[in-house]
Amino acid sequence: MATEAEAQWVLTATGRSPTNIAVIKYWGKRDEALILPVNDSISVTLDPDHLSATTTVAASPAFPSDRMWLNGKEIALSGGRFQSCLREIRKRARDVEDEKKGIKVKKEDWEKLHVHIASYNNFPTAAGLASSAAGFACLVFTLGKLMNVNEDYGELSSIARQGSGSACRSIYGGFVKWCMGKNDDGSDSMAVQLVDESHWDDLVIIIAVVSSKQKETSSTSGMRDTVETSPLLQYRAQTVVPGRILKMEDAIKNRNFESFARLTCADSNQFHAVCLDTSPPIFYMNDTSHRIISLVEKWNHAEGTPQVAYTFDAGPNAVLIARNRKTASLVLQRLLYCFPPQENDLDSYMVGDKSILSDAGVQSLADIEALPPPPEMKSPSQKFKGDVSYFICSRPGAGPKVLTDESHTLIDSATGLAKGV
Amino acid sequence: MATEAEAQWVLTATGRSPTNIAVIKYWGKRDEALILPVNDSISVTLDPDHLSATTTVAASPAFPSDRMWLNGKEIALSGGRFQSCLREIRKRARDVEDEKKGIKVKKEDWEKLHVHIASYNNFPTAAGLASSAAGFACLVFTLGKLMNVNEDYGELSSIARQGSGSACRSIYGGFVKWCMGKNDDGSDSMAVQLVDESHWDDLVIIIAVVSSKQKETSSTSGMRDTVETSPLLQYRAQTVVPGRILKMEDAIKNRNFESFARLTCADSNQFHAVCLDTSPPIFYMNDTSHRIISLVEKWNHAEGTPQVAYTFDAGPNAVLIARNRKTASLVLQRLLYCFPPQENDLDSYMVGDKSILSDAGVQSLADIEALPPPPEMKSPSQKFKGDVSYFICSRPGAGPKVLTDESHTLIDSATGLAKGV
Repeated sequence: MATEAEAQWVLTATGRSPTNIAVIKYWGKRDEALILPVNDSISVTLDPDHLSATTTVAASPAFPSDRMWLNGKEIALSGGRFQSCLREIRKRARDVEDEKKGIKVKKEDWEKLHVHIASYNNFPTAAGLASSAAGFACLVFTLGKLMNVNEDYGELSSIARQGSGSACRSIYGGFVKWCMGKNDDGSDSMAVQLVDESHWDDLVIIIAVVSSKQKETSSTSGMRDTVETSPLLQYRAQTVVPGRILKMEDAIKNRNFESFARLTCADSNQFHAVCLDTSPPIFYMNDTSHRIISLVEKWNHAEGTPQVAYTFDAGPNAVLIARNRKTASLVLQRLLYCFPPQENDLDSYMVGDKSILSDAGVQSLADIEALPPPPEMKSPSQKFKGDVSYFICSRPGAGPKVLTDESHTLIDSATGLAKGV
Repeated sequence: MATEAEAQWVLTATGRSPTNIAVIKYWGKRDEALILPVNDSISVTLDPDHLSATTTVAASPAFPSDRMWLNGKEIALSGGRFQSCLREIRKRARDVEDEKKGIKVKKEDWEKLHVHIASYNNFPTAAGLASSAAGFACLVFTLGKLMNVNEDYGELSSIARQGSGSACRSIYGGFVKWCMGKNDDGSDSMAVQLVDESHWDDLVIIIAVVSSKQKETSSTSGMRDTVETSPLLQYRAQTVVPGRILKMEDAIKNRNFESFARLTCADSNQFHAVCLDTSPPIFYMNDTSHRIISLVEKWNHAEGTPQVAYTFDAGPNAVLIARNRKTASLVLQRLLYCFPPQENDLDSYMVGDKSILSDAGVQSLADIEALPPPPEMKSPSQKFKGDVSYFICSRPGAGPKVLTDESHTLIDSATGLAKGV
């Protein structure tokens, strides 16, 4: 039995994981419990400075149960998905020794030790920006560090997959492919890195967070409905996506933006098409999403070759991937012209890499008002003030990392509780 | 050579043709010139009292060229589609004798005689309500009468098809199937009547004409883009639709509303899905369309079995087909609750069969304001004043007919010109 002094130690690890945006979409599971998809998918990892989850995990013999805090609020850990990830990591735990603190944990001890988890996102949760992808990737990655897990990233991605499918792709930076796998137990359904974040560093990513008044269908229930009712989904998964995956890998390897953009837009639209082909139909895009697509399509058409690709996840937000910083600033001018801010605060209308504003020649609200109508738009062009909540400017980014600086720790090692709660 | 007296005769015929709404959609041509579709389709013909075209055709040796007036304005007749219909009818023309007027036209004379055509729609043109279907069906039907064409309705439908694909289905009342046919020359691509308008006379059709600020893609160019770019279209046409056609025929024959409604909604959504799967994507439905779908889906779900089916053509307008008059009045209450009129004029907010308003217990604007929120909606329910322009209440109706009463004639037999121009 542990002495009082032994019982009071708290061992912590802190990590940070990026979110990711699929350019060939994952939609539909062939196994609900194991989260096995009906097709491969490919994503780009976003710069964790702009969109990421930070998580501290702590273990102590003093903890009577597993507990978790998300963005400062305690949440139930009863969900099967958390438990799956915890169980898989505990299985692979090894001996840990912290000489400085004088703590020794034998690998067989981990089964008995409870954990506390504190996590926060540096971007809005449940705004359709893949917060669960970043969150589960970070949980699995950081638990692995805490428990000295030795497995390769592929196996970690396979564990993260069981928390949230797309989380498996947030285990790597750059461009990442989730191979659907063939095995019934899901052991070969994992992510691989196609290229790292330095391979195609011209790309600029602008996210338009679109105001949504309608309640969204969750991805989990939406996918299930699509698998059960859409006649088009299996054809997409079995016949259309495999060819697109090959072409997309090729486009990424060769930095062929034209092919990349065409595939990205077409696949986003096809994902929303199978949502619409579901009974009852699922609408994630709204009129604002449609207007942003039209704006991009018109401009790309006027340029003769794609300058910007768009993709939409399970919500109305537009993710625009620009060929380079110049085209990003030009599409931003168009976006700001059509969707001026409702509030008189430019600073909160552009977050992430704010320097894109000066590239676009916009330093003030007056500069937005002075923007000329884009030549390819029919005059008089309509403006839709307030239809975009704000923009985020980002870029392809790196994968998860350990934060060793104590200032990042989200759990108080004295109390074992989330800080500031 | 004709004498002066002979040269002055004007022979006229006037007909009226209904519009139709597809419940299994036609989208995509396998032959652009002949207008041959990639799949069969099925439609319901609407009551011509509410949505129809009326057309007068006139022939005279005094006419130096073919001319046409649509809704009182002269339009160019140069389009290949008009010419195709005219040519095909002229080929089949027979001897005509009007003993009263003392006019005799030999069948070989028709090739040399020019025609004047005047047509008007009793509903808004180009509002996405199949005005071209009614228009071309009426043109072919009425030209056939003028020229004493003896062909059966199947062959007339095949000629109307060359004006506007869906026009072939407006040659019959009730429920109509357009058989895509197999022949390269299109000779077997024609409409057949499944049942006449008396077979299922419980049905009530409510059309919500939705305000649209966006320019629509024309059906012709939209279809072409879908055929060229959507990977899902051919799968829909070859694999999904054939099964649906058989089930829909069965549902109609047995008046199985549940099956009818499920097929109608699913096929409308799939048509819009392949539009979305097009590059660049085509959006015909807008947020108001989506809200009407949600309203119907929620109510049908609450009832446990479908009470109302929805279908959308190439525009944002909702066509709702109610099981019977009672369910029509209940869905109308819900529609009026969510979409109250913007103008203070109830009379122009419901056209067609206005008696549906009293069935719904609505006699005044105050009655609309007093409508309780539908129990299946989450409170507080949102209202969207002005998002619907007006409603039309109709029912399944009869096919084309000749109007013999001279008061319906749209061409002045003295001048040979459209009346009131």
